[in-house]
Amino acid sequence: MPHVTLREVGLRDGLQSLKHFMPTSAKCDWIAAEHAAGVDEIEVTSFVPPKLLPQFADAEEVVTFALGLPGLTVAALMPNLRGAERGLALGVHKLNYVLSISESHNQSNVRRSTQESIDDFSRIVAAVRAADKPPVLCCGLATAFGCTFEGAVDEDRVRRIAGEIAAAGADEIMLADTVGYAAPDAIARVFAAVKREVGDMIVGAHFHDTRGLGIANVKAALDVGVRHFDASLAGLGGCPFAPGATGNIVSEDFVFLCESLGYDTGIDIERLVAVRPILAANLPGTELLGNVARAGLPKHFAPARLRALKVAAQ
Amino acid sequence: MPHVTLREVGLRDGLQSLKHFMPTSAKCDWIAAEHAAGVDEIEVTSFVPPKLLPQFADAEEVVTFALGLPGLTVAALMPNLRGAERGLALGVHKLNYVLSISESHNQSNVRRSTQESIDDFSRIVAAVRAADKPPVLCCGLATAFGCTFEGAVDEDRVRRIAGEIAAAGADEIMLADTVGYAAPDAIARVFAAVKREVGDMIVGAHFHDTRGLGIANVKAALDVGVRHFDASLAGLGGCPFAPGATGNIVSEDFVFLCESLGYDTGIDIERLVAVRPILAANLPGTELLGNVARAGLPKHFAPARLRALKVAAQ
Repeated sequence: MPHVTLREVGLRDGLQSLKHFMPTSAKCDWIAAEHAAGVDEIEVTSFVPPKLLPQFADAEEVVTFALGLPGLTVAALMPNLRGAERGLALGVHKLNYVLSISESHNQSNVRRSTQESIDDFSRIVAAVRAADKPPVLCCGLATAFGCTFEGAVDEDRVRRIAGEIAAAGADEIMLADTVGYAAPDAIARVFAAVKREVGDMIVGAHFHDTRGLGIANVKAALDVGVRHFDASLAGLGGCPFAPGATGNIVSEDFVFLCESLGYDTGIDIERLVAVRPILAANLPGTELLGNVARAGLPKHFAPARLRALKVAAQ
Repeated sequence: MPHVTLREVGLRDGLQSLKHFMPTSAKCDWIAAEHAAGVDEIEVTSFVPPKLLPQFADAEEVVTFALGLPGLTVAALMPNLRGAERGLALGVHKLNYVLSISESHNQSNVRRSTQESIDDFSRIVAAVRAADKPPVLCCGLATAFGCTFEGAVDEDRVRRIAGEIAAAGADEIMLADTVGYAAPDAIARVFAAVKREVGDMIVGAHFHDTRGLGIANVKAALDVGVRHFDASLAGLGGCPFAPGATGNIVSEDFVFLCESLGYDTGIDIERLVAVRPILAANLPGTELLGNVARAGLPKHFAPARLRALKVAAQ
C-alpha cells in the first residue's frame, strides 16, 4: 500500500495572508490536534522578520512547542540566511526556501532575480551543512505553472532550475502552482520532466485551488509518482495578487482523495475535520473551505489502510 | 481538436432543491444568456407534477421560450409517462429519465423498485418512439457510485442495468454520482465497463462535487473517452439527504478544466461567468460556488480552439 505524505502548511502559507494575528496558544492547539489526527509533517511558521510579518513574531515559541510532539517533522520557512540561522538554533527538522520561476514574481516577492535567489540558496546550503545536526533542506519553486504577472512560464526553465537547485544541495524540491494556473496535463508533464532531471530526490507538490483544479492536479501528480503534498486545513491561504482567490488545496479533501484511491496517509479524516473549530474560534471572518467537512464521509467509508487489511485477511 | 458537450442542469437539478421560486422571466434570461455564451444543451425544467415541485409549474413557458433559441438542444426531465407526454406535446428535443442503481434510493425517490423503474422506462420508450418527431431519450443512472442509504453499490450492477437500459431503447445514458461518493479510479473503472457493455451510444457523466472530487472525476472520465457532462452554473444544487452538501460540479470550473486540457467546449468562460448575476439577483440567500468566477482566468489564457488555430497557423 503506497504512502502519501501531507505537509500541513496552513500555519505558514495560510496565516501569512491573514492580517489577524492568531494567538500563539491557538497555533499550538492546531499543531497538536493535527499531530494527534496523524499528520506527519507541519510547516509551523516562517522565519521572516517579525517587522515584515507580525503573524510570525512567535516563531520561536511555536517551533519549540512543535518539537515536543513525538514523531512530528517540524518544518519552517526560511527567507534567507538569517532565517536559516534561527531555524538551526532551534533544531527545526526541515527548512524550506522558496524562489520563483517567474522573474517578475521573484522580484516582487524578494526584490532580486531568480538567479540571485538560486545563489542565495547555495550559500544557505553551505552554512546549514556546516551545522552539527543539519536539517533537511527543501526548496520550493514558486509559479512553476504560471504567474499572474507573466502568464505562462517556460516549462523547460522549471526543469533547468530544478536541476540547479538539486546540484546546489537541496534534499527536496517542491513544485508550486502558486496562483492556481495548472491543469492536470501540465502537472504530469512538468513533474515527469523534473523527476527525470533530478533523479531519486523527493519532488513534492504545492498546489493552490484558485481555479478549482487543485484536487484534479493532485490526482495527476499521484499518477506520475508524486508522494509528498502541501495542503492547508480548511483551504486557508490566498494570493495577494488575486483578490478573492481561494488558497491552498484543502487538507481534508486531499486526504479524502488519497484514501479513496488507496493511498495511506496515516491521517484520520474525521479527527482532521474536528480541528477546524480551532480556526473558526481564532480567525474570525475567515472563510473555511472544504467539501468533506460540509458533507461528511460516505457511508461505510473505510480508509486505505483498513481496506488493505481486509483484502489481506481474505 | 476533441469536442466536449456541457449540458447545463442548474435550471433543473439546481432549482429543484431550492424552496425559493425563481421567476419565469429570470429562468428565461438565464437560458438565453448561457445560450449566448455558447452552451449547446440545457436541461431547462422538469415535467414533475407542479403539486410536488412548484418550482417547475412554469415548465411549458420555459420550454417554449428555450425552443425559440437557434441551435440550442432543449432537454427536460420526465419522471413518468405523463411527463413524457407533456414533453412530446411541446416538441422538446431531449427527454431525460432517471432511475437509481440503489434500491433504497429508488424507493425513496419514486416509491418503486429499480426493476419497476426500468420497466416504466421501457413503456415510455414505446410511447415516445410512436411520436411523429420522437425526441432523444436519455436515461440517468443515479447513485451509480454509491448511496447515502446503502454506502457502496455493486459496480457490476451498474454495468448490467446500463445494458438493460440500452436494450430498452435509450439513446444516451448518464452515469450519475448523485451524492459525491466517487473517486477518479472508480469513475474510470465503471465508465469503461459500461462503455464496453453498451457499445457506441453516448455515455455521459453527471457528477456532484459533494466531497471535492468532482473536477478530478471529470478528468478521469475524459481520460476514458467521456465527452458529455452535466454541470450547473455556480454549482447550484444539493442533496436533500446530505444537509450542507454542495451541488453539481460548477459549469464555469468544468469549462475551464476542459479548455485548459485542449477540449473545445464552444463556450466563452467569461460570458458564462457573467450569467451569475442573474442567479444572485433572483435566488437570494443561495450560495454561489465556483473558483474561476472568484479568481478570474489566468493571464493570457486562450481557449482550446484558439490554441489549436495558433498551432495550425505555425
